[in-house]
Amino acid sequence: MHVVVNAATSADGKLSTRRREQIAISGDEDFERVDRLRADSDAVVVGVGTVLADDPHLTVKDDSLCDQRRERGEPEHPARVVVDSKARTPSDAAVLDDAAASYVCVSEVAPVDRRMDLSDHARLVTAGDDRVDLLRAFAALESSGLERIMVEGGGELIFSLFEVGLVDELRVFVGPTVIGGRDAPTLADGEGFVEEFPTLSLETIRRVGDGALLTWTAG
Amino acid sequence: MHVVVNAATSADGKLSTRRREQIAISGDEDFERVDRLRADSDAVVVGVGTVLADDPHLTVKDDSLCDQRRERGEPEHPARVVVDSKARTPSDAAVLDDAAASYVCVSEVAPVDRRMDLSDHARLVTAGDDRVDLLRAFAALESSGLERIMVEGGGELIFSLFEVGLVDELRVFVGPTVIGGRDAPTLADGEGFVEEFPTLSLETIRRVGDGALLTWTAG
Ligand SMILES: NC(=O)c1ccc[n+]([C@@H]2O[C@H](COP(=O)([O-])OP(=O)(O)OC[C@H]3O[C@@H](n4cnc5c(N)ncnc54)[C@H](OP(=O)(O)O)[C@@H]3O)[C@@H](O)[C@H]2O)c1
Ligand SMILES: NC(=O)c1ccc[n+]([C@@H]2O[C@H](COP(=O)([O-])OP(=O)(O)OC[C@H]3O[C@@H](n4cnc5c(N)ncnc54)[C@H](OP(=O)(O)O)[C@@H]3O)[C@@H](O)[C@H]2O)c1
Repeated sequence: MHVVVNAATSADGKLSTRRREQIAISGDEDFERVDRLRADSDAVVVGVGTVLADDPHLTVKDDSLCDQRRERGEPEHPARVVVDSKARTPSDAAVLDDAAASYVCVSEVAPVDRRMDLSDHARLVTAGDDRVDLLRAFAALESSGLERIMVEGGGELIFSLFEVGLVDELRVFVGPTVIGGRDAPTLADGEGFVEEFPTLSLETIRRVGDGALLTWTAG
Repeated sequence: MHVVVNAATSADGKLSTRRREQIAISGDEDFERVDRLRADSDAVVVGVGTVLADDPHLTVKDDSLCDQRRERGEPEHPARVVVDSKARTPSDAAVLDDAAASYVCVSEVAPVDRRMDLSDHARLVTAGDDRVDLLRAFAALESSGLERIMVEGGGELIFSLFEVGLVDELRVFVGPTVIGGRDAPTLADGEGFVEEFPTLSLETIRRVGDGALLTWTAG
């Protein structure tokens, strides 16, 4: 399994405003890059915070990329995966529609009625007691044939993935906007490290549109 | 007056850990760049949060850069400026020592005994009722002949400077460490913008040591 985390941040490292309202950070050129990365993935993973804030669809937008996937014998779109301990994903969330396969990873605390409801729209993966156990959940995804994983946020999920050592690559588009805010979501939230910080290697830096794309690999 | 904000962040946009403990983000190559930037400045400004957390000295480290300053008829080191509404800077703070000129910008709420104490070590600039009024304080610095201003953080001060439109340039060294933490200081904290976001222009991107240096100008 290969896990690529991709995100767009403001020049000051925020994923969105303190109101958790997504603002346009990147432009067309970066959207196309993200679309190609989706098209090269078996699954696109987000935390339930992102589903509740943005209700993203997470499908490939460019038809010719979908065609290429079909020609390679792959489904038109990658699977969508939500990490959602308490099964809070709304049944009408865009990630649960019929456009592509959907998975929801829940924990043992998820209420049974919510699980039943979600199981009409998605395959459920149960891992962890109070919170989704990411190592077990990702192992289950791998067993389902999902090898090339793209994670699209948010900051809580990304931090946890670094914590358990699941991140292979980090690609960050740093855009020209200043968002600010001590309570705004950042690229890696959670508790935060105070020692044994993960260390990355900078692979490439390049200008993309009005911002900079930094790609890092994890050791 | 020309204001350059310079900071080092982790790959996820943090200035330090949630414990406000500074960790080594950049390496020798970036230290040298920062030292040259200090040597090209009339004043180095920080918020009192940074003084209390790190007790920095803010002087130029490279003797030959000090010599060049003297040859140009400038003081050996730039002035050090602390933005400190309540005059909380400790009298034995490194920025108040005799190595260079010191300024403390306070507001009307600063207790008189603290002001008297600090006035033995620094020139006091009083601006603002509850909090330092940055526009007035920076105007006073300019009247004292301080034209080339370098701001070294932290995130609360940097946000406020963007809020009042005082930032001309932002230089960020993005290092290869992941710090994480929803409570860790970021490059721009404060309340945060929810609309009318400042927009920057990306001037240069280049690898410096193990990280990336992004330089932006404000419109
Ligand atoms: N700019 C970008 O590229 C980008 C991309 C994505 C999102 N965003 C923004 O990011 C914000 C959402 O981010 P977020 O950090 O609040 O949410 P998030 O990371 O999307 O989701 C976090 C939630 O996932 C659940 N979860 C379950 N198991 C977990 C585990 N082991 N570790 C971590 N989380 C786990 C937790 O809720 P439960 O405990 O209830 O399960 C947690 O609150 C939104 O404002 C969105 O707009 C921006
Ligand atoms: N990596 C780096 O490049 C770097 C550089 C610097 C600092 N740091 C880290 O950043 C952290 C400190 O940052 P910080 O954000 O807590 O503190 P800060 O920005 O250094 O100082 C903020 C304080 O300045 C005072 N202030 C007065 N007037 C202000 C105004 N108009 N706007 C904003 N602040 C005003 C406020 O305290 P009063 O109201 O009491 O005056 C405020 O709490 C430390 O952990 C330090 O290690 C890292």
